[in-house]
Amino acid sequence: MSKFCIKIIIVIFSLLILFTGAVFASNTDKNPSMTHHMMLLVIQLGIIIFAAKFGGIIFDKFLKMPAVLGELFAGILIGPYLLGSIALPGFSHGLFEMAGSFPISTELYGIATVASIILLFLAGLETDFAMFLRFSFAGSLIGIGGVVFSFVTGDLVAVFLSNLISDKPIGFMHPIALFLGTISTATSVGITARILSEKRKMDSPEGVSILAGAVIDDVIGIILLAIVLGISSALTGSGGSHNLDWSKIALIAGKAVGFWLIATVLGLIFAKKIAAFLKKFSHGVMASIALGFALLLAGLSEMAGLAMIIGAYIMGLSLSKTDIAHVIQEKLSPLYHFFVPVFFTVMGMMVDFSAFSSTNIILFGLIYSVTAVISKMLGSSLPALFMGFNLRGAIRVGIGMVPRGEVALIVAGIALSAGLIPPSIFSIAIMMTMITTLFAPPALVWAFKSDKRGTKKEVSTKGEEIEVLEMEFRNIQTTNMLMESLLSSFKEEEFFVHMIDINCRLYAILKDDISVSLRHYPTKVLIECNNKDLQYIKFIFAESILELVEIINEIKDSSDLKQKPKDLFSI
Amino acid sequence: MSKFCIKIIIVIFSLLILFTGAVFASNTDKNPSMTHHMMLLVIQLGIIIFAAKFGGIIFDKFLKMPAVLGELFAGILIGPYLLGSIALPGFSHGLFEMAGSFPISTELYGIATVASIILLFLAGLETDFAMFLRFSFAGSLIGIGGVVFSFVTGDLVAVFLSNLISDKPIGFMHPIALFLGTISTATSVGITARILSEKRKMDSPEGVSILAGAVIDDVIGIILLAIVLGISSALTGSGGSHNLDWSKIALIAGKAVGFWLIATVLGLIFAKKIAAFLKKFSHGVMASIALGFALLLAGLSEMAGLAMIIGAYIMGLSLSKTDIAHVIQEKLSPLYHFFVPVFFTVMGMMVDFSAFSSTNIILFGLIYSVTAVISKMLGSSLPALFMGFNLRGAIRVGIGMVPRGEVALIVAGIALSAGLIPPSIFSIAIMMTMITTLFAPPALVWAFKSDKRGTKKEVSTKGEEIEVLEMEFRNIQTTNMLMESLLSSFKEEEFFVHMIDINCRLYAILKDDISVSLRHYPTKVLIECNNKDLQYIKFIFAESILELVEIINEIKDSSDLKQKPKDLFSI
Repeated sequence: MSKFCIKIIIVIFSLLILFTGAVFASNTDKNPSMTHHMMLLVIQLGIIIFAAKFGGIIFDKFLKMPAVLGELFAGILIGPYLLGSIALPGFSHGLFEMAGSFPISTELYGIATVASIILLFLAGLETDFAMFLRFSFAGSLIGIGGVVFSFVTGDLVAVFLSNLISDKPIGFMHPIALFLGTISTATSVGITARILSEKRKMDSPEGVSILAGAVIDDVIGIILLAIVLGISSALTGSGGSHNLDWSKIALIAGKAVGFWLIATVLGLIFAKKIAAFLKKFSHGVMASIALGFALLLAGLSEMAGLAMIIGAYIMGLSLSKTDIAHVIQEKLSPLYHFFVPVFFTVMGMMVDFSAFSSTNIILFGLIYSVTAVISKMLGSSLPALFMGFNLRGAIRVGIGMVPRGEVALIVAGIALSAGLIPPSIFSIAIMMTMITTLFAPPALVWAFKSDKRGTKKEVSTKGEEIEVLEMEFRNIQTTNMLMESLLSSFKEEEFFVHMIDINCRLYAILKDDISVSLRHYPTKVLIECNNKDLQYIKFIFAESILELVEIINEIKDSSDLKQKPKDLFSI
Repeated sequence: MSKFCIKIIIVIFSLLILFTGAVFASNTDKNPSMTHHMMLLVIQLGIIIFAAKFGGIIFDKFLKMPAVLGELFAGILIGPYLLGSIALPGFSHGLFEMAGSFPISTELYGIATVASIILLFLAGLETDFAMFLRFSFAGSLIGIGGVVFSFVTGDLVAVFLSNLISDKPIGFMHPIALFLGTISTATSVGITARILSEKRKMDSPEGVSILAGAVIDDVIGIILLAIVLGISSALTGSGGSHNLDWSKIALIAGKAVGFWLIATVLGLIFAKKIAAFLKKFSHGVMASIALGFALLLAGLSEMAGLAMIIGAYIMGLSLSKTDIAHVIQEKLSPLYHFFVPVFFTVMGMMVDFSAFSSTNIILFGLIYSVTAVISKMLGSSLPALFMGFNLRGAIRVGIGMVPRGEVALIVAGIALSAGLIPPSIFSIAIMMTMITTLFAPPALVWAFKSDKRGTKKEVSTKGEEIEVLEMEFRNIQTTNMLMESLLSSFKEEEFFVHMIDINCRLYAILKDDISVSLRHYPTKVLIECNNKDLQYIKFIFAESILELVEIINEIKDSSDLKQKPKDLFSI
């Protein structure tokens, strides 16, 4: 015990010396500009990593809510509008002081920007657009319906309630209205996918349609961002008159869509060449250079008046059809895990908490959020009703499409940093993202409580019976080896393998009318499929296991290992 | 062929539209500040990744020279002092324009700073200082000798040749002289280790002493940086009089060493607690939080008037003795591979090429570089002569200690960004780093040409006979599994396992007077050890293989896999 006491005394004493020394030294620094900037960046980044991880863990493990909410909340808490501006010894303006009118420093925003590019590049890489279109016509209509409804209503909320957020009336084509519409469009399917997977409903007709809908959703949302950015900068360019004739708007929209098409066509034409070129390098270098391409195309698309994430997404989309997509995904996933929580926390830090002291802003935020929930549900449910779903099924699809996520945050961040929306509107966008993300999980659980089918026709009942294959393994390595063998078996059988959620390793595996979902736990593999496909999937599964056994046999029986210990001593 | 022509036409046409659109759009941007900054950062980062990877590959694969030189050269080429300032459409000041008097933007320098922290954190994590000290008294003396000689001569070059670089005479305690001394101290052992490993000389007495010397070297070099920073800021604080009495210098040095000791003691006291705390999380989260700690301690040490890398290094050193060191290393290695080449290229970009138009600067740089080579050789060789090496052995040790690397660059970057040295001196530091790095490989090959022993006593001849165990395996997975089993076997036998080079997966494995080196190729494991230890090492190797066979047997024979295909169809 006395040893412990001495330790404690040493620690307290040392901390005191360190701290007084630190404060003293920081006051006498004579050439502070660059060094001080860097010190601030490094301390901020350290604190952000802590905040992001703890926020994420508290929400995920203890509150059983999506980790992204915890990361956002942590950011709000430590940001310049709350704790960040409290003066500390050595930081007279707080740890996270405002950088002029912008809530965070350019260095920190730079890291968040790189994060958003990695995010959208990987999102594009996961998306085989053509395959998805062919696979799900229903999904496309559901996605388009959701986008149109939520864009229009999001915009109209700003128009009708403009007195709550502005002194002047806001028209439909006002940048604030346009951005509130755009922010409301893109569904973030990760949370829905995780819950469907837990409820074993990933491969229900509802699940498949939601996944397909969310893909279309992303693409349209990003094109919409391009158009809205064009219109907004044309409007601010015309002296803020907020009057543009429709021919001019059509021209801008045409230009944005044209850029999108040209870049995508170029991407697809070059994809094979780029892939062939990248294959000359080791996997790590390949992934780095691919990221280099994504960064360059992102910069070019910004130069062309589109947003950077559009270029990053198109680069990902272009490479998604090549056989190196999986390798790039895997090699960049550690960067994703480092950058993306930082991104969400930085977005949270940009929330102007003081905005919520105005009841007008809170009221507007609540109405906007509720509208975002209802409009997405309506917009996605209505087409679903015409695509073979009954009311129950349509509601399930609608709820699944409600959560907004990273794309909404990125779009809001772009608009804020370009000065097209004020901080209060940015804060409302984050509020909406959080509310829709909070709404979806319990609502989905409720909607899938009944086991009754969600489709109209009796015929599809057979397909609706989901079978679950679950296999436990002894150790992580065997499981990893099996997963690799399994994914390549599916690809050999010409299935389309799509990683939906990078955090919980969830895959959608599709071919013609067969839809399988696969979840990779540390020592468990879980497959869900329709009853009708069970024998086929079992066959592929068994084949993969036998393949693995064969490999292991080969290793074991060959002179490779067995002989080696003898070799060692017979030399 | 006509299809190909159409493709080409589409591509050219599209590129033209994209490009003119891009240039046009970028000229009409009305709210450029933040958005423009971010666009520039993203494009710059993309180009830096390309430059770093291609520079590295060209030097490594084609010129058979260290990749780091290629990364530096690529940086010099694309930097603001050469190609970077050429005006391009949309970039009237070039892609990499000067940020005021500093060659690169704060956002880019921020990314380089984070890279330097990751680098030194991992360097600390690889270093089990106490073990190394106990292991090699010779190594400590060799390291200290090299540091003292190269610091003093590096400083004196500035004093005696001050007329070449300055209008005013430079004293021994002038910041420029002190930094030229400090930059010259820290050996970068990666290149030497790679060549020794290729020549099968890692476990020669020379090899072991070089490795130990380089560890001591790093530690002293970083303490020296702390002292020099303290003196420099005190000097600039005293109105540039450049007069400090020795009692004041002793005080500053005492403070710097004191901080170092206190932080290290605190680190060691808390290490187990931090490790126990970190173990509560998954491996990925654990590594992120550990990096968060490193960033925070880095920021605190900057506040205390020490450099950031000192805090990062101490954090690594503290955790190096815990059992999670290996996990953190492994999880952060993708971040290392992304950030570190960017760091080297950014350092290259900061080289003021115009400085070399002055013959004075070139002359000074050459003399400084040659002095750096000779002083390190002398400083390390002399103690070696007293530690049982003959002249041949001492020269080998001296040459092995010559290359300078990342620590020299980081120190130079710190001094430049704090305004303590002018750009021309920074450029000279890079020149010295490159020349010493170029010098070592051929010189080492020459020094080890003769197979004669490098030690005085006949007794050690037996130890000098290096035995090589080489094992090929069928696939990467088996090799990885064996490596894991092998490393844990060595650790169980109470060996100290030290990863020397992250790029070529080179390990030094030490216990008492046994020294083993291990190199992990994709499908090959190569072990070198002394003749006298061969049987023991063979035993450990065989044990690991048998362990692996057992694991594989277990997997194979257990119901785990064999039964599974049957299970699938018997349900």
